[in-house]
Amino acid sequence: MALGEFELIRRYFSSLGPQHPSVTCGVGDDCALLSIPFGYELALSIDTLVAGVHFPEKNYSPHLLGHRALRVAASDLAAAGAAPLAFTLALTLPFVDELWLGEFSRGLSEAAQQLSLTLIGGDTTCGALSMSVQVHGLISKGRMLKRSGAAVGDLVYVSGDLGAARAALDVLEHPSTIPAAISATFLQRYWQPEPRLQLGVQLRGVASACLDISDGLLADITHIAEASQIAIEIESWKVPINAEVCKNYSSSDALCFALTGGDDYELCFTLPEKNSGQINMIAEAAGCSLTCIGRVVEGAGVRCLDQQNKLLQFDRNGYRHFQ
Amino acid sequence: MALGEFELIRRYFSSLGPQHPSVTCGVGDDCALLSIPFGYELALSIDTLVAGVHFPEKNYSPHLLGHRALRVAASDLAAAGAAPLAFTLALTLPFVDELWLGEFSRGLSEAAQQLSLTLIGGDTTCGALSMSVQVHGLISKGRMLKRSGAAVGDLVYVSGDLGAARAALDVLEHPSTIPAAISATFLQRYWQPEPRLQLGVQLRGVASACLDISDGLLADITHIAEASQIAIEIESWKVPINAEVCKNYSSSDALCFALTGGDDYELCFTLPEKNSGQINMIAEAAGCSLTCIGRVVEGAGVRCLDQQNKLLQFDRNGYRHFQ
Repeated sequence: MALGEFELIRRYFSSLGPQHPSVTCGVGDDCALLSIPFGYELALSIDTLVAGVHFPEKNYSPHLLGHRALRVAASDLAAAGAAPLAFTLALTLPFVDELWLGEFSRGLSEAAQQLSLTLIGGDTTCGALSMSVQVHGLISKGRMLKRSGAAVGDLVYVSGDLGAARAALDVLEHPSTIPAAISATFLQRYWQPEPRLQLGVQLRGVASACLDISDGLLADITHIAEASQIAIEIESWKVPINAEVCKNYSSSDALCFALTGGDDYELCFTLPEKNSGQINMIAEAAGCSLTCIGRVVEGAGVRCLDQQNKLLQFDRNGYRHFQ
Repeated sequence: MALGEFELIRRYFSSLGPQHPSVTCGVGDDCALLSIPFGYELALSIDTLVAGVHFPEKNYSPHLLGHRALRVAASDLAAAGAAPLAFTLALTLPFVDELWLGEFSRGLSEAAQQLSLTLIGGDTTCGALSMSVQVHGLISKGRMLKRSGAAVGDLVYVSGDLGAARAALDVLEHPSTIPAAISATFLQRYWQPEPRLQLGVQLRGVASACLDISDGLLADITHIAEASQIAIEIESWKVPINAEVCKNYSSSDALCFALTGGDDYELCFTLPEKNSGQINMIAEAAGCSLTCIGRVVEGAGVRCLDQQNKLLQFDRNGYRHFQ
């Protein structure tokens, strides 16, 4: 590369994020080094974003891409109930564009500060634009939130509201149909999703199973049903749909966005009914709303019902009723 | 993807490598979980291989690529003196080719067993062929080998011999010039480098600085000189050149391959002279030769001398003498 890999790292990726006492050696040696406090385990997850697949190839802001790359990866720490610690970045670039690098690094640095994740290492290579981010977090021993703990009778909850990130994709495809101020709200949700890190930590020892919604509520919750070997019934009219989505789309489109749209990065979790008294306290501590949307039942798979107790079924283009 | 991401992971990437008691949660949840034994730190390093940059785009064996991807990454654990534990794989594929996946997975699995690294997580995405591997290893607290500890008077050592991986690149470009049996030896070094994990562990508390040779001896050793703020003098005639390289290339080409060729993944380290009595014992325990090739002196940079005490200087096309 024109700039040289080492100079590029020094300029744009040498000290991002806060200092953590657990980071014993950061960027610059053959390995980074983490010192895990006694009584804790290390949670880790890697996510790749490819240009043209996970973000638009053209007409995007590298600043927002820096945000999105770290926020999407950090959401897996939230789902596991881990406290954020550090991340690595493997960045593949077609060529060295210092304007792009400056903006990307600025977004990544802002997100690193906001999410309390320190950059500790990485790799820079030449090729089609893509990036892999691995995040690392701390969890008290044996307290990780998994997908496999849901039991019959548990309640199903979701954080925040759903559908805005899916509406952002609609805005990107049809720029003129939605007022600019509202488009901006949707796009913000897409580019700067808020990983529910506080919520994840609060749910340790309270929730029975948890995951983050990246592919869509109904698609993702299937993983809890499979891992826990139970069935889940969703009462579709209880699902919290983003208010601006409700205002700007038909009720059936809005519901479809909320149930099948990805990229919201809210948490979906199950809770033994005896713990449901703690929900308001947890919502307050986590700074987000929590809505009960269904229940764990015997059987397999996910059933989504409307208020007439009819089964809703969805395909890529929307949804249709079944008896 | 045609096969579906989850089915693809289940078929090809669900259980690779040995079981480690420190892996508390492996492939399949939002996060993997590592439990670090008391008194140890976690070393980690990420490496990306891009098709057409780090391996040929066509006419290569996916089985060997699986080996190379993990072996190259594991070499950073060796350089830090870490005992291998686990790895993650972020794999980007242009399309699902089950023949390719089966062979790649077989190579990766063999390397995982041989290097004692367990696959604990990853991501599978669609795009131009590339892969990032992050390796994780254990080191007793405070005993990591770094680049920054070399002191004036220390001796400089290199493991094994150098130049064969560079000769492999020559073979790939000019297939007919070297006998097939010898080409195969060179190609094996390129595709299946041996990370010096045993040596790295033996050098903890003995070597003052260490790294692995990925970009070439002279290029890489510069990092020790910079990080340690000292100069290094290499006596070029002492550098161990691969015997087959010596036989099949002119002496000046062979020396150039050994000093500037990358991809050998041998370790280069500095040692206080008082520890040099341990070298034979360490070489035996590590199962590789160790050769003293120079000394740490005052100043900055790396000087490479010939037997007439003349400075050798290299460019991309070879090397030339300077007074």
